[in-house]
Amino acid sequence: MINDKLPVIWYGGDYNPEQFDLLTLQDDIVMLKKAHINIATIGVFSWALLQVDEDKFTFSWLDTIIDTLYENGIYTCLATPTAVPPAWMVKRYPDLLRTDPMGIRKKFGGRANACPTSENYRRFTYQIAGQLAKRYAQHPGVLMFHISNEYADACYCDQCEIAFRQWLKDKYQTIEAVNHAWNTTFWGHTFQTFDEIVIPDARSEQWSDRATNFQSMSLDFKRFSSESLFACYQNEVKAIREFSNFPVTTNLMGAYKPLDYAVFAKGMDVISWDNYPSHHATPSEIAFSHDLMRGLKAGKPFMLMEQTPSQQNWQPYNALKRPGVMRLWSYQAIAHGADTVMFFQLRRSVGACEKFHGAVIDHVGHENTRVFQEVAILGEELARLGSQLLDTRLTCRVGILFDWENWWAVEFSSGPSQDLWYRQEIQKYYDAFHQQGIAVDIVFPYQDFSEYAILVAPVLYMLKPGLAARLKEFVRAGSTFMTTFMSGLVDEHDRIVPGGYPGELRDLLGIWVEEFDALPPGVTNRMVCHDDQRTWQERYACSLLCDVIHTTGADVLFTYERDFYKNYPVVTRNRYGDGNAWYVGSSPEPAFLSDLAANLCREKGIVSALSVPEGIEITQRTDGKITYLFVLNHADSAVQIDLGSAVYQDILKMQTVTGKVMLASKDVWVLRS
Amino acid sequence: MINDKLPVIWYGGDYNPEQFDLLTLQDDIVMLKKAHINIATIGVFSWALLQVDEDKFTFSWLDTIIDTLYENGIYTCLATPTAVPPAWMVKRYPDLLRTDPMGIRKKFGGRANACPTSENYRRFTYQIAGQLAKRYAQHPGVLMFHISNEYADACYCDQCEIAFRQWLKDKYQTIEAVNHAWNTTFWGHTFQTFDEIVIPDARSEQWSDRATNFQSMSLDFKRFSSESLFACYQNEVKAIREFSNFPVTTNLMGAYKPLDYAVFAKGMDVISWDNYPSHHATPSEIAFSHDLMRGLKAGKPFMLMEQTPSQQNWQPYNALKRPGVMRLWSYQAIAHGADTVMFFQLRRSVGACEKFHGAVIDHVGHENTRVFQEVAILGEELARLGSQLLDTRLTCRVGILFDWENWWAVEFSSGPSQDLWYRQEIQKYYDAFHQQGIAVDIVFPYQDFSEYAILVAPVLYMLKPGLAARLKEFVRAGSTFMTTFMSGLVDEHDRIVPGGYPGELRDLLGIWVEEFDALPPGVTNRMVCHDDQRTWQERYACSLLCDVIHTTGADVLFTYERDFYKNYPVVTRNRYGDGNAWYVGSSPEPAFLSDLAANLCREKGIVSALSVPEGIEITQRTDGKITYLFVLNHADSAVQIDLGSAVYQDILKMQTVTGKVMLASKDVWVLRS
Amino acid sequence: MINDKLPVIWYGGDYNPEQFDLLTLQDDIVMLKKAHINIATIGVFSWALLQVDEDKFTFSWLDTIIDTLYENGIYTCLATPTAVPPAWMVKRYPDLLRTDPMGIRKKFGGRANACPTSENYRRFTYQIAGQLAKRYAQHPGVLMFHISNEYADACYCDQCEIAFRQWLKDKYQTIEAVNHAWNTTFWGHTFQTFDEIVIPDARSEQWSDRATNFQSMSLDFKRFSSESLFACYQNEVKAIREFSNFPVTTNLMGAYKPLDYAVFAKGMDVISWDNYPSHHATPSEIAFSHDLMRGLKAGKPFMLMEQTPSQQNWQPYNALKRPGVMRLWSYQAIAHGADTVMFFQLRRSVGACEKFHGAVIDHVGHENTRVFQEVAILGEELARLGSQLLDTRLTCRVGILFDWENWWAVEFSSGPSQDLWYRQEIQKYYDAFHQQGIAVDIVFPYQDFSEYAILVAPVLYMLKPGLAARLKEFVRAGSTFMTTFMSGLVDEHDRIVPGGYPGELRDLLGIWVEEFDALPPGVTNRMVCHDDQRTWQERYACSLLCDVIHTTGADVLFTYERDFYKNYPVVTRNRYGDGNAWYVGSSPEPAFLSDLAANLCREKGIVSALSVPEGIEITQRTDGKITYLFVLNHADSAVQIDLGSAVYQDILKMQTVTGKVMLASKDVWVLRS
Repeated sequence: MINDKLPVIWYGGDYNPEQFDLLTLQDDIVMLKKAHINIATIGVFSWALLQVDEDKFTFSWLDTIIDTLYENGIYTCLATPTAVPPAWMVKRYPDLLRTDPMGIRKKFGGRANACPTSENYRRFTYQIAGQLAKRYAQHPGVLMFHISNEYADACYCDQCEIAFRQWLKDKYQTIEAVNHAWNTTFWGHTFQTFDEIVIPDARSEQWSDRATNFQSMSLDFKRFSSESLFACYQNEVKAIREFSNFPVTTNLMGAYKPLDYAVFAKGMDVISWDNYPSHHATPSEIAFSHDLMRGLKAGKPFMLMEQTPSQQNWQPYNALKRPGVMRLWSYQAIAHGADTVMFFQLRRSVGACEKFHGAVIDHVGHENTRVFQEVAILGEELARLGSQLLDTRLTCRVGILFDWENWWAVEFSSGPSQDLWYRQEIQKYYDAFHQQGIAVDIVFPYQDFSEYAILVAPVLYMLKPGLAARLKEFVRAGSTFMTTFMSGLVDEHDRIVPGGYPGELRDLLGIWVEEFDALPPGVTNRMVCHDDQRTWQERYACSLLCDVIHTTGADVLFTYERDFYKNYPVVTRNRYGDGNAWYVGSSPEPAFLSDLAANLCREKGIVSALSVPEGIEITQRTDGKITYLFVLNHADSAVQIDLGSAVYQDILKMQTVTGKVMLASKDVWVLRS
Repeated sequence: MINDKLPVIWYGGDYNPEQFDLLTLQDDIVMLKKAHINIATIGVFSWALLQVDEDKFTFSWLDTIIDTLYENGIYTCLATPTAVPPAWMVKRYPDLLRTDPMGIRKKFGGRANACPTSENYRRFTYQIAGQLAKRYAQHPGVLMFHISNEYADACYCDQCEIAFRQWLKDKYQTIEAVNHAWNTTFWGHTFQTFDEIVIPDARSEQWSDRATNFQSMSLDFKRFSSESLFACYQNEVKAIREFSNFPVTTNLMGAYKPLDYAVFAKGMDVISWDNYPSHHATPSEIAFSHDLMRGLKAGKPFMLMEQTPSQQNWQPYNALKRPGVMRLWSYQAIAHGADTVMFFQLRRSVGACEKFHGAVIDHVGHENTRVFQEVAILGEELARLGSQLLDTRLTCRVGILFDWENWWAVEFSSGPSQDLWYRQEIQKYYDAFHQQGIAVDIVFPYQDFSEYAILVAPVLYMLKPGLAARLKEFVRAGSTFMTTFMSGLVDEHDRIVPGGYPGELRDLLGIWVEEFDALPPGVTNRMVCHDDQRTWQERYACSLLCDVIHTTGADVLFTYERDFYKNYPVVTRNRYGDGNAWYVGSSPEPAFLSDLAANLCREKGIVSALSVPEGIEITQRTDGKITYLFVLNHADSAVQIDLGSAVYQDILKMQTVTGKVMLASKDVWVLRS
Repeated sequence: MINDKLPVIWYGGDYNPEQFDLLTLQDDIVMLKKAHINIATIGVFSWALLQVDEDKFTFSWLDTIIDTLYENGIYTCLATPTAVPPAWMVKRYPDLLRTDPMGIRKKFGGRANACPTSENYRRFTYQIAGQLAKRYAQHPGVLMFHISNEYADACYCDQCEIAFRQWLKDKYQTIEAVNHAWNTTFWGHTFQTFDEIVIPDARSEQWSDRATNFQSMSLDFKRFSSESLFACYQNEVKAIREFSNFPVTTNLMGAYKPLDYAVFAKGMDVISWDNYPSHHATPSEIAFSHDLMRGLKAGKPFMLMEQTPSQQNWQPYNALKRPGVMRLWSYQAIAHGADTVMFFQLRRSVGACEKFHGAVIDHVGHENTRVFQEVAILGEELARLGSQLLDTRLTCRVGILFDWENWWAVEFSSGPSQDLWYRQEIQKYYDAFHQQGIAVDIVFPYQDFSEYAILVAPVLYMLKPGLAARLKEFVRAGSTFMTTFMSGLVDEHDRIVPGGYPGELRDLLGIWVEEFDALPPGVTNRMVCHDDQRTWQERYACSLLCDVIHTTGADVLFTYERDFYKNYPVVTRNRYGDGNAWYVGSSPEPAFLSDLAANLCREKGIVSALSVPEGIEITQRTDGKITYLFVLNHADSAVQIDLGSAVYQDILKMQTVTGKVMLASKDVWVLRS
């Protein structure tokens, strides 16, 4: 449990009563209790109210809120307010603010706007985090610390440049090592001293998020930026730890590219994240995000820190969540390992840019709204569940390898195709397992793979030191590894591994990739099957990139149908030790990936708990003894589910289900057998 | 009359003989007289020639031009040249120039490029305007002053920031009032002093014309910018008034978003504007612009200050005006209340960016061009009209409410849909009346509505203080009010009016809007009719936004056909006092709006002077005794008009028309009964 | 011959062994010899290695490379490394770097990044070029100097502004002359002194590459920028000439808009260029680029300095060159006048942005790749050719006029259509001749036209002084001239030539263009034939722009089918002296241009050497005695060629061909009769 003071699924969300008055707080509490809210995130963005001068703090208003909530049975997730330094502080210390990639210093405004290397920022955030911890460490109503808010982006100022040089010195020791890692002989960029190095930005080497002259330099700056923000986080944790051992977290944002959350995870007691899918997001895309977040702490339950009860405000088109969808998506989070269901926000702002973002309590101020009623019904249901799901975990035999640094590197690449998006390729493979009800862990390179029967690593472009050896050991021991085009090409400095692609994976895969062709949009090739031992269609379309492959031991399962590499292998499988290593040399249509996932699972004896009709999602959570089967209907109509002869107890509706049963649109079962 | 020295329709345009030589001036005058030109706008952009040092002026060339024109029967509309400070002045006083939203100071170049709060700019413009007034106040050939040219845009420099703070101090008195108005507790943006406030721009809060973190702050900066430019205008008027009581104007640009022309109108003796429709503009769009401009002075005749005789140069595709179109559009201006027909320009430049903009006298330099011939024929025709149309007015029983601040506020909104454009929604309702021959006044919130039978206020998002009460009084007295989705939501600070949407209009409309759904492009719902007392189709499509409405007294006229709000009201009508208040909760297809307009007019006994076939536009101008009926054929072929049994005199062709008569393509009648 | 030390077709390319080690150099040489490589471009971007302090040079590594190559029969094209100043130098002299159009100074990074007016840049480049020339002038292995690399773009810094003012003083002498040339009376931009002039950039007059307020000012700045970079080139040539008379060149980039290569050509001993077509480039587009480059030195053989053996890296989609295409395109270069076939690059980088750009020696490091094999086979074939093609030339009777300044001027124009692209209109006319096997010279205004039977000048917007007279003389003497809409409009200052379009060409063409209409995308008109003396279809589509034309002596060959200018001329021909002058007043479909080219050639007795089926390209090179006929099959299948009764020797396959013979897809003949 995150904090055993509150041994149930935490239900609540961000709350800013300081935007209103005490009467409103009283009214709100009446409503929040009706909705079975038991936690409120307090204090996000409240720095200007908390600290009015260098050493002058005003906590009384916060005391009142936390006390009042606690008196009414609502616990506090206490946020440090450091995502926005106060206006007076910024005016006094302009170095607190960021500079953009064109060298233009920001002025006061926005949020997540502080320079992460600013000494003043570090000093002031340490101070306020410590003050909060000191004052509230003993408060019975406080459950945990929520550090800052949605860390984001980077800064390109002169002090960051100096810090970047120091970071490089610490990492490489000598300028020669930098020159080698960055291959600076190319274009004559050799540095004589660290002082000559500048940040790669729109004024120097990197003119967009996907375009840089020196991939390795830009990668190092991304690492530096991500670590700088993490250092801000750690700085606050350190201040808190002087007074409190409460769990600490910060709210992450799913597959947010600029920050390496695998690094952040190491400093977080519990992962929490904000789930804001667009109106056209698929259930599988949302599921992937949950699994990605769960994977950061190797399967430990996480917090759904924010979701909207209904409407967002910053999407191009902010559709309402249809009736039932908020409940469905809340259970989807739990189904994927969340132990909390929390909203942004409990009461809607009346001014500024989020006034059209949904809330539990709307502008109208009363409970007679569709949204409030749905929130209250879910609250009641969750309250009934008590502690029974807490700390149960998913058990996955399939892992998908994900790596932020690899993501950065792939998308910094100049060539072969601008349409190659790492996230998208990962999602295609994830979808294939998800739609068949096979649970997947998202795994990071530094984690242990040994528990998985299958490890899928699409576009594993960058192989960090030691990873190839660990993958070989994994396969040798009998497991299945699968990777794709654009894998094994570079080391951690984005330097090509010489001797033929895919570099260190050549013997594992039993192939040599001679070259790769980029297909413009609309152009496809086809893959022709030569494998009669598994279940395939005769042909599948493929596109994007086409590797020209020579086998050096691998079996050829598919070949190209067209072009000058007609009859060359496109899908291969190599026996390696007791396991198999698969290679897919192009980007196939979804039908292939489904069949591939089915074949791989069949060979490993991995089966879904249920057969899964379209629109249905299933997962299982278990404490080792009791297993809970989640069945979610994302479809727009009722779907018949075949539960077979087993008899289940639906712990939501408290009823027994078995055989062929209809599950209503947007409805959910949590079944205990 | 604007100036009774010239008691006819003014016919002429911008003229820059200083770009040529005296011989050219002589040649031009011969041609201009052939074209019956009686007015020339002189001096726009001539500052560098007029003032060659701090206190050194050279008026002789201007004397020659004005004298020569006057000797030839051509009057002068005298422009102050302040839209472009001379290069020498800018070099000496760089603060004259603007700074962009990224903080980059402009260099010499362009036009409308001066910082509106620059003390030097104010000082120099006061000086030159005064000098001109002093010298030409008694000139018999000068009719009026044209202040500067097409005021536009904003400045983001440090001196504007200081001025903005002072403006806020004047408006709000205390920093607490600012914090409340802007809801700065949100995101912890509370200010302790005015000095902490920065301009909302790309470095701080507002990253595009439609995106800001603090709507209220951005609104205030828009008000400040608009007022700063108006102050520049007023500053020149003040200088002129020391010497002259000539009428003053500045050339506006129709529905130009950055400037609140309702404010400008208060300082203008006569409205003048520049009509540059794109090649795909509809007649109704042009008509709307004329009516918008006329509305600024509550119906008083206005000046068509600029239009091109044929081609523009800055559009993506600069099509020629087809034969007859220049004449047709000139009469359209008159039909909507203009008492002048003026061109940009009388002679074409030979260099720089407007050399491919059309002119009365083309580069070829002689009169044997299609364009010159059309101009000359129109000139002769207008000359024949004499003074008979002057000072006649349109009489409208339908008003459409328009408000620049509302426009800014709606489009600063973050959510619900990026496809909501205020101008477009207004135009849809305007079109519905226009196509049926119903004259419409564009009305501003501060004006008196009592003369209208129907007031239409699409997307009346922001209700300024007192407006709700005045609207209620309007309806209570028996009139019809109509509004739409996204109305009544906020006060003048863009703060939500609590207690349920549409805020202060709830009792007037008899509804409560619980929530609003945003439909992505391509998605529609349908509205099903439940009203058997009026003439409707059974169903109409609607899109963009769908309000979820509860009635609290209103009649339900239409309900949604689909989605979870199926059967919820979408169009309602509420009886209020002796009048009716209509609400349209979505954005319907044009067919609905036509039927709505027809129904509303029928109930109020408003009828068109003629039945109006497609492509035909009609209006009426009257002096209370004589009424002139304008009939314009915008279609590409002749159209039959049924004039009934009335007998009219066409004062253009001096012929009698009655019964069913063909009106040629692009032809015009001005009929006197 | 470029340098008679190596009297064969030079075969090789860019080589950067300094990115690797000496062992790699040894391995490479073994492979390069297998591929018959005889030249390597050495030293591009090597400044940081060559010069480590103000006066400290390290040549030993370069000695080793040049010596080793020479010992192995590989000559050196020695590059000056000045495209990238070393990091230490930039840190010490920040004025070396450029400033962008927003005034933001660049930081160290990229390439072609130096401010062209920087005194320090001039001083240091003079120094290093001199040092290299001094050291290697006597080296038997060095063939020539390759100055810097791909000169590009412009700088907008304060020192460039001062230099620009000086350039203007030198050109115009007085500020009055500048004011007149730029027509600064427009918008009141009159300058009193040169010091008031600023660079036209995003802060002043020019807000994009196609948008400026003052075309003439922007043109002058383009001239200045182009000349500044040329001055950098000349500065290095001067340093070299103190020690060496080796031929000098710099690698151009085909139809690269920012630089006037006609100016550069005057300082180059031999033209060299880098051929990087996109994957959708047509053979005719590539052919045009070769002809454009050849034209710069009036037909003298040029160098293909760079092409990729297979893949590029910076295109959106980097397709592989299909088997045979590298060879086909190499011969296409030779067929159009190249005497070298050179690659970027001989060995692939392992890091930074070009690591996915193709190379002779790939990352795999061995010769068993498709690409290496194709390179080796071509090497062997070229070696067999010996010197027989060297210095032979194409003989063209058709010229197409091309002018960089005209290109700039046309696309700076504000109006009439944003879809008018000079390069595209030129290409359409080029295609018409190319597809019929008619060789075309690209001709520049300063060159002699007298040898041509036909001169085609599409969109000859700007007529430089004297050009009209020379064109008239050309036609008067019996030749055919052809031009289009948007011709003859302005002088070299972009000032309209008064008196009617097309200005000075009116009497030559026998027409007056009254006005021109811009057609939006998707809108077309049609041209109706009235000429029964030539071979035409009855009608052809036309679009983009439609001139409204009056003939004043010319014959009307085609008229418009539609719109108010229906029946007005669109294609005319005027008898002038002993020749004819054609005018095409719109942008016709390709079918018309084919027929036009055929008709013009027929009248002049110009015939293709062969009839040319689709996909086949032919050219001829001759030394006046022997003629070599190149036949290239760009199609994806074999094509039958009818050689007639002539008997040819194919000097590639050393076989005799005659009559109807199949030429394989992507195959090439070089036929000697």
